[in-house]
Amino acid sequence: MRTVEEHRAALVGLVSALPPVTVPLSESLGRVLAADVVAAVDLPGFDNSAMDGYAVRSADVVGAGPASPVVLDVDGDIAAGDTRRHVLRRGATMRIMTGAPMPDGADAVVPVEQSDGGTDRAALMLAAEVGKHLRRRGEDVRSGDVVLRAGMRMTPGRLALAAASNVAEVLVAARPRVSVVSTGDELVGLGSPLDHGRIVDSNRPMLMALVEAAGAELVGFGHVGDDGEALASLLELGRGDPDLVLTTGGVSMGAYDTVKEVLSRSGTVEFSKVAMRPGMPQGAGVVGPRRTPIVTLPGNPVSSFVSFHIFVVPVLRALAGLDPEVALVDGVAAQGWSSVPGKVELTRVVLGPDGVRPSGGQGSHMLGALADATHLAVVDAATTNIEPGDVVHLLPLVGQD
Amino acid sequence: MRTVEEHRAALVGLVSALPPVTVPLSESLGRVLAADVVAAVDLPGFDNSAMDGYAVRSADVVGAGPASPVVLDVDGDIAAGDTRRHVLRRGATMRIMTGAPMPDGADAVVPVEQSDGGTDRAALMLAAEVGKHLRRRGEDVRSGDVVLRAGMRMTPGRLALAAASNVAEVLVAARPRVSVVSTGDELVGLGSPLDHGRIVDSNRPMLMALVEAAGAELVGFGHVGDDGEALASLLELGRGDPDLVLTTGGVSMGAYDTVKEVLSRSGTVEFSKVAMRPGMPQGAGVVGPRRTPIVTLPGNPVSSFVSFHIFVVPVLRALAGLDPEVALVDGVAAQGWSSVPGKVELTRVVLGPDGVRPSGGQGSHMLGALADATHLAVVDAATTNIEPGDVVHLLPLVGQD
Repeated sequence: MRTVEEHRAALVGLVSALPPVTVPLSESLGRVLAADVVAAVDLPGFDNSAMDGYAVRSADVVGAGPASPVVLDVDGDIAAGDTRRHVLRRGATMRIMTGAPMPDGADAVVPVEQSDGGTDRAALMLAAEVGKHLRRRGEDVRSGDVVLRAGMRMTPGRLALAAASNVAEVLVAARPRVSVVSTGDELVGLGSPLDHGRIVDSNRPMLMALVEAAGAELVGFGHVGDDGEALASLLELGRGDPDLVLTTGGVSMGAYDTVKEVLSRSGTVEFSKVAMRPGMPQGAGVVGPRRTPIVTLPGNPVSSFVSFHIFVVPVLRALAGLDPEVALVDGVAAQGWSSVPGKVELTRVVLGPDGVRPSGGQGSHMLGALADATHLAVVDAATTNIEPGDVVHLLPLVGQD
Repeated sequence: MRTVEEHRAALVGLVSALPPVTVPLSESLGRVLAADVVAAVDLPGFDNSAMDGYAVRSADVVGAGPASPVVLDVDGDIAAGDTRRHVLRRGATMRIMTGAPMPDGADAVVPVEQSDGGTDRAALMLAAEVGKHLRRRGEDVRSGDVVLRAGMRMTPGRLALAAASNVAEVLVAARPRVSVVSTGDELVGLGSPLDHGRIVDSNRPMLMALVEAAGAELVGFGHVGDDGEALASLLELGRGDPDLVLTTGGVSMGAYDTVKEVLSRSGTVEFSKVAMRPGMPQGAGVVGPRRTPIVTLPGNPVSSFVSFHIFVVPVLRALAGLDPEVALVDGVAAQGWSSVPGKVELTRVVLGPDGVRPSGGQGSHMLGALADATHLAVVDAATTNIEPGDVVHLLPLVGQD
């Protein structure tokens, strides 16, 4: 029986990183940066006023105060957005708005509150020193500064910073292209009536959602019954030219476990038992003329859901050129639960304000617990009991709030 | 000067909830449920085996044990996925796989580990009582159970549960349709060279990203200069039939504040100072023949970013039929900072493992701080200093990790 780490390493070893891609900044939301982003301009781009007031030469307002106003000619107004190049003559001032570019020659601003508000001539009551109430060009960001680092995911705020830095394109990690195939004669399409022994093909929509939520691109999906020939041809096809094929079902030891039967014959896909619960039966390898990597997930929906997080996410990250390992977060158990000995137990849990609790029934057939779960608790093979107050290691679920 | 609450209430009052929409489950990822989801089938859908082993009538294995095996004829195999209806005759057994449907008449399973593994006749060494190693039909979910509640956001796990419950469509909150217009002659498109006094039109891509990350649909965007006529016509147009128009810029008191000038004349848009920092100048109302709601955001990118979170998110939520209020989370300050008296201060902060810290320079022109910020700390008007250890109230940033 393989350990989780051994199987994960084998899977990650099947793939190579896809080359990163350049995208327009406007299409980068949610993508992961593959290179640092370097500012193309200074921020602010020019000296500008931090207040509504009067742009002055500080030398002209020496000694100014409430009791000793300095009166200067007002040579005009500069609004935010004014792109003209103004020059402030000695002994004069210009009215200036917050954010407006400083006129050449001015080196300080007297706020309107410390003036008489004059429009032709103004009495200024502050001996503003050099730089007072100014925002200096480049004081936030300098052209050439690294403003965002490789590995960061693009959020609206980061996109705003890159945009203001006049960066029109960014290099981002590729989105792996994934095909999803569910297998099994017993499956019926969503919304169809269920006869005896039939179940809804819920793995396919689930995996499609997981693929999308994990930042990969779904390029094909389908269902095949337990007809080995159809199955084999579908896998040969590599429809949509995927970087990865995911199947669910048919990997146990039943008479209908066609995926295992067909792919074992190919010699390029290996089936293993992995020391974890749920999700013991696993398989992986390459298929088709392009030797497309394939991961065969168990048909049990909970096992498939858990396996996606434990094995497929690292493969998708490796394809994207990222560290395959997802960082676990620590939580404190608010209640105890038991765990299977000798296997890693992946408990569906809710991380709430009071700590970590299993989110309902944990049988591998129990889907109800998925409604509220936020994380998988990764309980190692040696641990058989979690006690309240224990620190537990949590893997965040993909696409979770 | 309005309070934040007063202005927010005025904005939310401009809109009515859009009717919820029915979408195929496969397109529901990330959407917010507008109605409870009710299971259409039992989960599991039929009694099935929890183990690989032998389906038995418990009456036939009374007294069985390691020292006293009961030997039964094996009448066949039932694999997971077998949809035939089997009947177990008295005094016989059938081999059964995990997840396979129980044959009629059987009421318990003897695990293969407690047998001799026989295929024609099997020696069973467990006196399995009624229900032993069975998963009962409906023990996870019963047809008619509420499996997901209105207001929940659809995650892959919830989608899986709804799919398994044979729910093909769900009613979700509408995605409001939003147009974004940036204004100002000083703005140049991303990637263009910057002359004196010009700045990159970063608000437009930023707001487009925020709209998308907030779950709304972008139906139009553009930029207009400070030509009042062009501006007025653009706003009249309601291109793309939006539910909400956002503008940035032109709402202060400068000579170039065309948005304010043009829309004030309409009589249907009101401009206000709001007691907050950043983001004091705000405006809102309705425009055009359809009386489309409009929110005019300040042109300063940081003010615009903050205003989106404080004012636009509640409007989008109201349009979607959700509680406009976003729940704040509590954090503990890891370092102190000062806050403006008399106004709500919205500090861009990072919530890290050691607590809450301002994420760099907080000047309203400081965009660098947006790279790492995860939340806005909402510091009320009466508070002028946050001390280390203080509890602060945090608004999560839209589209954050």
